[in-house]
Amino acid sequence: MPSKAEKNPATGWRERMHEVIFEADTTAGKVFDVALLVLILGSILAVMLESVPELVADPRWRLWLRVTEWTLTGLFAIEYILRLLCVRKPLRYAASFFGVIDLLAILPAPISLLFPGSQSFAVIRSFRLLRAFRVFKLAHFLTEAKQLRKALIAGWPKIAVFLMTVLVLIVVVGTAMYVIEGPEAGFTSIPLSMYWAIVTVTTVGYGDIAPQTSLGKAVAAMMMICGYALIVVPTGVIGAELSKGMKQPVSTQACTSCGAGGHDSDAKFCRACGEKL
Amino acid sequence: MPSKAEKNPATGWRERMHEVIFEADTTAGKVFDVALLVLILGSILAVMLESVPELVADPRWRLWLRVTEWTLTGLFAIEYILRLLCVRKPLRYAASFFGVIDLLAILPAPISLLFPGSQSFAVIRSFRLLRAFRVFKLAHFLTEAKQLRKALIAGWPKIAVFLMTVLVLIVVVGTAMYVIEGPEAGFTSIPLSMYWAIVTVTTVGYGDIAPQTSLGKAVAAMMMICGYALIVVPTGVIGAELSKGMKQPVSTQACTSCGAGGHDSDAKFCRACGEKL
Amino acid sequence: MPSKAEKNPATGWRERMHEVIFEADTTAGKVFDVALLVLILGSILAVMLESVPELVADPRWRLWLRVTEWTLTGLFAIEYILRLLCVRKPLRYAASFFGVIDLLAILPAPISLLFPGSQSFAVIRSFRLLRAFRVFKLAHFLTEAKQLRKALIAGWPKIAVFLMTVLVLIVVVGTAMYVIEGPEAGFTSIPLSMYWAIVTVTTVGYGDIAPQTSLGKAVAAMMMICGYALIVVPTGVIGAELSKGMKQPVSTQACTSCGAGGHDSDAKFCRACGEKL
Amino acid sequence: MPSKAEKNPATGWRERMHEVIFEADTTAGKVFDVALLVLILGSILAVMLESVPELVADPRWRLWLRVTEWTLTGLFAIEYILRLLCVRKPLRYAASFFGVIDLLAILPAPISLLFPGSQSFAVIRSFRLLRAFRVFKLAHFLTEAKQLRKALIAGWPKIAVFLMTVLVLIVVVGTAMYVIEGPEAGFTSIPLSMYWAIVTVTTVGYGDIAPQTSLGKAVAAMMMICGYALIVVPTGVIGAELSKGMKQPVSTQACTSCGAGGHDSDAKFCRACGEKL
Repeated sequence: MPSKAEKNPATGWRERMHEVIFEADTTAGKVFDVALLVLILGSILAVMLESVPELVADPRWRLWLRVTEWTLTGLFAIEYILRLLCVRKPLRYAASFFGVIDLLAILPAPISLLFPGSQSFAVIRSFRLLRAFRVFKLAHFLTEAKQLRKALIAGWPKIAVFLMTVLVLIVVVGTAMYVIEGPEAGFTSIPLSMYWAIVTVTTVGYGDIAPQTSLGKAVAAMMMICGYALIVVPTGVIGAELSKGMKQPVSTQACTSCGAGGHDSDAKFCRACGEKL
Repeated sequence: MPSKAEKNPATGWRERMHEVIFEADTTAGKVFDVALLVLILGSILAVMLESVPELVADPRWRLWLRVTEWTLTGLFAIEYILRLLCVRKPLRYAASFFGVIDLLAILPAPISLLFPGSQSFAVIRSFRLLRAFRVFKLAHFLTEAKQLRKALIAGWPKIAVFLMTVLVLIVVVGTAMYVIEGPEAGFTSIPLSMYWAIVTVTTVGYGDIAPQTSLGKAVAAMMMICGYALIVVPTGVIGAELSKGMKQPVSTQACTSCGAGGHDSDAKFCRACGEKL
Repeated sequence: MPSKAEKNPATGWRERMHEVIFEADTTAGKVFDVALLVLILGSILAVMLESVPELVADPRWRLWLRVTEWTLTGLFAIEYILRLLCVRKPLRYAASFFGVIDLLAILPAPISLLFPGSQSFAVIRSFRLLRAFRVFKLAHFLTEAKQLRKALIAGWPKIAVFLMTVLVLIVVVGTAMYVIEGPEAGFTSIPLSMYWAIVTVTTVGYGDIAPQTSLGKAVAAMMMICGYALIVVPTGVIGAELSKGMKQPVSTQACTSCGAGGHDSDAKFCRACGEKL
Repeated sequence: MPSKAEKNPATGWRERMHEVIFEADTTAGKVFDVALLVLILGSILAVMLESVPELVADPRWRLWLRVTEWTLTGLFAIEYILRLLCVRKPLRYAASFFGVIDLLAILPAPISLLFPGSQSFAVIRSFRLLRAFRVFKLAHFLTEAKQLRKALIAGWPKIAVFLMTVLVLIVVVGTAMYVIEGPEAGFTSIPLSMYWAIVTVTTVGYGDIAPQTSLGKAVAAMMMICGYALIVVPTGVIGAELSKGMKQPVSTQACTSCGAGGHDSDAKFCRACGEKL
């Protein structure tokens, strides 16, 4: 691509590496990205398995998981250093969202060495999964994601109105249920009542807290039907937005001979009189 | 805006205050509305926290919540009086929906002084959240809400047919389950059976009441599949209505000759009288 | 309406009564239909209340419910006789769907006299609710129901494909879970496993039966995500069908002067050149 | 159909049998397919009933089920042999998807003879239900399924983006809940936490594992609202795709001059070369 070459005229090793690590247009870049995705998924799998008590009890599994852990940490550290080396402004990269995530992906292993059993740092690594999205540059997924994001942004005000309504419903019904049911039925505070309201209106329905009195059941039933009716709104909004965004672009060109409009954008002749457009 | 000035020609302090308190077009009006929204959210948060037993047990939290409570009540009282002062017909405002809500927002604190522990009045304040919608005059949210309301009204007959079907299903299956399962399985009365039917058809599924016999389970399974199939109807209706409402950007141009509106955006001649637009 | 008069030329008392009872075009007919709907809802409410043990234990409530019961049965009996009298072919009406329902609405009371405690007949009355749909002739609901039914019929093959897929999923996963989990976890037979699969895929999730083993949980998790992904299909189908059915009918008329098409169906002049259509 | 006759010119007994067994265009073929569907459903019903302990305890039911089992196995074996006989390349059929399924449908009975109580083979038979789809060649269902599949394929990238988001949400929230709640609340490992996250985000909500701490409940509530908001995406995508696919009845007419197709149904001249259609 000449337009690309114009942007990066000085093609040294740094440029080539940048293309491999940060871009996904060349074969090497694609291979790098897929390999990275596999390593990230592997590291997440290792974190998950490390939390299963049955596996950690087995010394061989523990050793295997420890080795995987340190190997991956090493590889991610090398990747991080390479990234720092091949960008023009390393500090700007280090301060960017992915720069911070990349650094945080390396830290858990050395930190767990200093503070043994610091399990809570395992959470951080999960965020590396977000990098997986980047790999979809490979395919045309990003275009799709953009179209989806556009529909979400276009439909956002309507969805905000919907979420506001749901929140008012949750607060009002949550408070009402706290007054109606009281602590005996498990509704010990308004925040807990609201938690119950959220569990109910989203139709999750654990059943750990449930109305006991007849009035409470009647209110809950009405709320369920409201929630059931409300969910249609955002669905319809997104569907309509996407439908609008996907409509075939009809040409605005009118026939110079007969003035007929509404031609397809690739039409070369008027569909009404056959004149050249 | 000159058109606005024409509507309110006498611009004294009452007019200016009216603009600040009731309108959201000026900077002062926007600041007032956002400040009010923050105070309302704060008062709701205080009501919620007051219901948490762990917090109320702590004397400092109790004092802090009491102070917040009375401060906010005072501010809401001042706001209510200002509203009464700056409208032309104070009684008409006092009798309007928001007038009543605004009054009810002040009452709980003094009432709880007379009747200590009158917790049930906390519910009333939750309704103040409805005022939050008013603040969205600030943004273009109201236009969106209008479009949504139009789609809901247009789709309402179809949704009514759908809700009727669901209600018949709930009554019939509720009664049937009462006969099939009986009081042993928890279906002690038809209203309770209908509560179970609502919990099931909206897919909430607490599990506090569940069919025990094989026949009851078969009927419940059929009902679930029906409910699963039925939910598509209102969703599709709203989606289609919104899709229709958002298509066709009709020109707002009116014919200078006959006054007819609703022309297509690319129309060059009036479709009613043939005059050039 | 002259066209109506042409259909029913002989207008005696039978014709007038027929118009009141069976039609909803005249004021008397509308009043009759609304009154009937109120009575039906009242009779269903009475049946519901009769099943609540607390109410039946109170002698006054029991008496009141008994009186309501027999009064309504009497009124429904009179209505049934009037219907038989004013139709031309009484037997054809008696054998029709609503004829049978109308007869069944009268039977429970006398039958419960012969067989005291024959509670199971209460179910039959619930079906009277279906008559409520008839009353919507009053409004334009029926048109909407027709449009909805058309969309459902048009989308039916697609929904059938979807339901088939869901059923195959339920059978396969139900059988698999019976083999994986076994009777210890509550999966005592394949039909019961399938009941669990239906409860899960429709996202009801009672929790009375839930997988216990890791493999079972993994299979259940995969099934949930499948069910979550599958529900989009019928929703999209109905939405698309309704969207198609509601598209504004654009006139097929082309301008005789310039040949431009795509005019609105109520346009009188060409929107492109202003010529009379 | 002459085009068909050209494909199968040699019409011997093999050809006729092939038409009956593999095709569904003739009456005999339709009868064969429906009969096969009934037998498959019968065999699945028999497998289900065989798993119900109450039925197997009864010697008469056990005998009846055993006879049904072997009769159906015999019929399926005959069908399999006939299929092998009437295709031109028997090995290719035997290695195809349906060939393997057809063979697996026969095996369970003889295998259960060798290894008594080998219940786990019952699963295999359930897959025969997939053959039911084949029968829908009978109706126009296959066209519908194709249209649906096209919409699913077209919408697939968007749905993949959605599923990726949901998966990241499940991993992140699952890990977070494992750290927040810990083993005391039932979140004994990250995979189990993720199982809980799936049960919650799909709104199944068994309630066997549920957050106990306030922080955990807050995180769960936020996740539920996210899941509630996310489900709209795939629904809207499929609806929009189907809507697009079903709009615009494009003429099947091809230009006689240049062969270009895809003209609008009201086009009078070819849009590519201007020739009269």
